[in-house]
Amino acid sequence: MVVYVTETIEIAGIIAFTSSGIFSAMQKRLDVFGVLVIGFVTAIGGGTIRDILLGHTPVSWLRNINIPLLILFTSITTMYFHRFVKGLKTALFVLDALGLGLFTIIGIQTGLEAGLHPGMCLMLGTISGCFGGVIRDMLLNEIPVLFRREIYATACIAGGLLYLMFEGIIGETFAELISIIFICGLRIIAFKRRWGLPSLPRFRAK
Amino acid sequence: MVVYVTETIEIAGIIAFTSSGIFSAMQKRLDVFGVLVIGFVTAIGGGTIRDILLGHTPVSWLRNINIPLLILFTSITTMYFHRFVKGLKTALFVLDALGLGLFTIIGIQTGLEAGLHPGMCLMLGTISGCFGGVIRDMLLNEIPVLFRREIYATACIAGGLLYLMFEGIIGETFAELISIIFICGLRIIAFKRRWGLPSLPRFRAK
Amino acid sequence: MVVYVTETIEIAGIIAFTSSGIFSAMQKRLDVFGVLVIGFVTAIGGGTIRDILLGHTPVSWLRNINIPLLILFTSITTMYFHRFVKGLKTALFVLDALGLGLFTIIGIQTGLEAGLHPGMCLMLGTISGCFGGVIRDMLLNEIPVLFRREIYATACIAGGLLYLMFEGIIGETFAELISIIFICGLRIIAFKRRWGLPSLPRFRAK
Repeated sequence: MVVYVTETIEIAGIIAFTSSGIFSAMQKRLDVFGVLVIGFVTAIGGGTIRDILLGHTPVSWLRNINIPLLILFTSITTMYFHRFVKGLKTALFVLDALGLGLFTIIGIQTGLEAGLHPGMCLMLGTISGCFGGVIRDMLLNEIPVLFRREIYATACIAGGLLYLMFEGIIGETFAELISIIFICGLRIIAFKRRWGLPSLPRFRAK
Repeated sequence: MVVYVTETIEIAGIIAFTSSGIFSAMQKRLDVFGVLVIGFVTAIGGGTIRDILLGHTPVSWLRNINIPLLILFTSITTMYFHRFVKGLKTALFVLDALGLGLFTIIGIQTGLEAGLHPGMCLMLGTISGCFGGVIRDMLLNEIPVLFRREIYATACIAGGLLYLMFEGIIGETFAELISIIFICGLRIIAFKRRWGLPSLPRFRAK
Repeated sequence: MVVYVTETIEIAGIIAFTSSGIFSAMQKRLDVFGVLVIGFVTAIGGGTIRDILLGHTPVSWLRNINIPLLILFTSITTMYFHRFVKGLKTALFVLDALGLGLFTIIGIQTGLEAGLHPGMCLMLGTISGCFGGVIRDMLLNEIPVLFRREIYATACIAGGLLYLMFEGIIGETFAELISIIFICGLRIIAFKRRWGLPSLPRFRAK
């Protein structure tokens, strides 16, 4: 049952991440191919960096044709029905929060399986969840929104800590579900209440 | 004989890709070292991403000193004789199109050897052919021209499909030659006729 | 003894690289998380690219929790006491030069151990020393300062050549110390005398 839930969340997460990439790309003057690449990179970028850092190659999306197909399908649908999909803003936001939670936990589990220090696993989890968006913004020639915005990576880190603490006590499955719900919930509450990390006093060179 | 043809095209492709990088870099205020790095990255970036995604390490240029030497030589020549080389615009354009074709097919073949799904091989081929230019543009702080421009990646994808369809029927060698000629030809015709992909309606946030 | 010296220099280098990242990030409007990521990437980026190109995975910082901890501690200290740390400009500059020297030589040694051509090792050394700053600038949406600035990468290349020439004659240890001192010294002198690489005549497209 849990496997089905996890798979459903993964599909939801990929759809949400892809759409978010497509929307970002459509704000710039890109052609169809460019928009497709951005959608793709947003969806699989974080997991790809994780796999490369760990040496898990060929990276995971190269081994499962369903992922690129799902991204392609989502991209085309989003491009074609962008006015309609835009109306689904709230739904997409929740899917994105769910995906963020799931991808973070997958990243942590991958690190634990590779026998890494829990602190490293936490970093890998955050990278898995957040860095697709970082590559997207680099390609779109912007400072990553992740570095300026409301609670996003922080939710991953907090939820990841939760997972690492409880995984040994209540079992992997329960810890996974609780952490995903926690990340997703924190993300939504933070967004609603406009919580943000303090930005540092601007430091002037010279 | 085919090996010689392939090797000659590879050399031509590296020369053309390097020069294109050098010219892009010279439009910005970079010092000699910066221009060299951009030339290098443009020439080997695509193949490097392919090798990293597949786990073929050390990546291929690290195993063949002739590639960096060729790039270094081309870079210095291009920088020194830039007025003269600029006059070779048409020649460089054709070499670039040839290189694009060859690198795409090499990427596909590498994927097939690794036992990947043909769809993945197509993606790897496109990455091999096009993503050196993407890294170049990221380093030069611009949105990759590949995402906005005329038919470029599309030629790789079309030619790659051709290769995958015919490789089993007419043999690797013939399929390779036909696909390279196809990519190169499509690229040249598209450029001459100013074909381009449709750009999407600009999507406004909020 | 040499091991202790090397370890001390490595710690000094990581501290200096991290602070330099933090300062760069604080000139932009980033939140605390963004500044942390930039500090981290500046410190470990070069070595990470080296490890990925070579296939040394999991990359080195994933295998040693002390490195992330040192970076985290340095980052927080630098953010909190940024006015004070800024006053240490000269000290940080010297540490940075020392780190640059050491990381370059470590990169070269890693290449030699992997049985690569000395020319490749030189490139790997330069990448290890310099490319953390390149990723930092890409993330901050700027053309890498390395490509425009005074003698920086050039010092790595010159010092690396020195190491490769003398390593067989006077032994690894002595060659290492001499090269690090050379890179560090050249960097400091070049900075004081405002030496720079020639920038190329700006090339106009069209």
